Amino acid sequence: MNITLDQADLAISAAKDKALDLDTKMNIAVVDAGANLVAFARMDGAWLGSLDIAIKKAKTARYFDMNTGMIGDLSQPGGPLYNIEHSNGGLITFPGGIPIKDESGTIIGAIGVSGSSVDNDHSVASAGAKSV
Amino acid sequence: MNITLDQADLAISAAKDKALDLDTKMNIAVVDAGANLVAFARMDGAWLGSLDIAIKKAKTARYFDMNTGMIGDLSQPGGPLYNIEHSNGGLITFPGGIPIKDESGTIIGAIGVSGSSVDNDHSVASAGAKSV
Amino acid sequence: MNITLDQADLAISAAKDKALDLDTKMNIAVVDAGANLVAFARMDGAWLGSLDIAIKKAKTARYFDMNTGMIGDLSQPGGPLYNIEHSNGGLITFPGGIPIKDESGTIIGAIGVSGSSVDNDHSVASAGAKSV
Amino acid sequence: MNITLDQADLAISAAKDKALDLDTKMNIAVVDAGANLVAFARMDGAWLGSLDIAIKKAKTARYFDMNTGMIGDLSQPGGPLYNIEHSNGGLITFPGGIPIKDESGTIIGAIGVSGSSVDNDHSVASAGAKSV
Repeated sequence: MNITLDQADLAISAAKDKALDLDTKMNIAVVDAGANLVAFARMDGAWLGSLDIAIKKAKTARYFDMNTGMIGDLSQPGGPLYNIEHSNGGLITFPGGIPIKDESGTIIGAIGVSGSSVDNDHSVASAGAKSV
Repeated sequence: MNITLDQADLAISAAKDKALDLDTKMNIAVVDAGANLVAFARMDGAWLGSLDIAIKKAKTARYFDMNTGMIGDLSQPGGPLYNIEHSNGGLITFPGGIPIKDESGTIIGAIGVSGSSVDNDHSVASAGAKSV
Repeated sequence: MNITLDQADLAISAAKDKALDLDTKMNIAVVDAGANLVAFARMDGAWLGSLDIAIKKAKTARYFDMNTGMIGDLSQPGGPLYNIEHSNGGLITFPGGIPIKDESGTIIGAIGVSGSSVDNDHSVASAGAKSV
Repeated sequence: MNITLDQADLAISAAKDKALDLDTKMNIAVVDAGANLVAFARMDGAWLGSLDIAIKKAKTARYFDMNTGMIGDLSQPGGPLYNIEHSNGGLITFPGGIPIKDESGTIIGAIGVSGSSVDNDHSVASAGAKSV
């Protein structure tokens, strides 16, 4: 099962609402089950460099079916996945990427958010993921 | 002046309407004046390979401030811009990329569309560009 | 719907049989519906350079849901898709890549073959695709 | 001497058996003495992101003729090979990549496994390497 464009638009809309609540400007990306981009939005004035990070967070979350921050915990110096970020054309492993599931719990895609603190990035991604 | 996310969403919405009129499934990308992605949508069932092409068409149109097909005319064997496609991480120079202008005629971004014949791609991109 | 590893192994096995029939040595790649690699085999003595070509043919066939040779017909100088090969990290658009469908006709992946003449490449890919 | 496709298939088959024993889903790659891919299999439901990691582990093990985890010990901050992962288009230096030797002890290739904990990855790779 793959996320639809309507579902992806819903996730981006919910994420944007949350970003406005937090008074932040975000880049928001949604990928499908194959880790390919479905929808993207960069809010006016959001960091340019967060464009690529948002997309990489979404891909990373789908690549390993977990929140990006969990991978970052394991990829620290001395950790079991040290420097995993060198794979797949570049991973982003700090918080802000979250898998998106359907009602049955099947992962149908992922959302990635970048543009503020990682706590805010995660909150906005979470709002998007939950809306689907 | 830069295109806003609201304007980019408007362009994508108009492009999707045109794509449905033509019974096609499109990838639609909008970049800003800096040639950086602002918004993107892949319609359900659209070609996966057109994802990258739509983005590259939008970037190419803004890189040279002209329709992508005009560059393709010049990049043929023996032409003055032969194999210009090797620059900028890969250009796409057939129709479907169009600059977006504001009321004063200033270029504020570009739209790129891919997923059908190049004629259809151009028609859909044109509908998007005109809506802004 | 996605191709399974068992189906991919079946396709590679049928392709290898056909390659032996033709007295050729092939690289054979199978990707899933998301254009991600599922299985690969390089026959002993097959061209090293065909490794990447086989994978790119499989991806190209899934990216556009058609045989790779059909894209190559359109990407010639003066053609509507001239230099499309610059997209998606490099396409291969001569024969040897074929979509794989399930019984209902849904595309569930693709096979790419490289190592001999393009006619032989296509014959071997076709044997693999039909076996699923 | 180079690993043959039959030997690589044997290694993948043994690795898959071990992966099933451990109730894991793995990506398994085998490269030859030239560090070029010979055979690959992604088990149904295995992480997408482990595709690239499995291949990079196999290459890394052959690039330096040692288990990938040994390189990771040396590439930590302050270590003699700090950030060696930036070379060769990206190395993966945590466990799961192992050289494959023939009866005489000559290295004829390498196997890389990714999809679970690094301990499981290493166990599965080891089962594959020993089978040859």
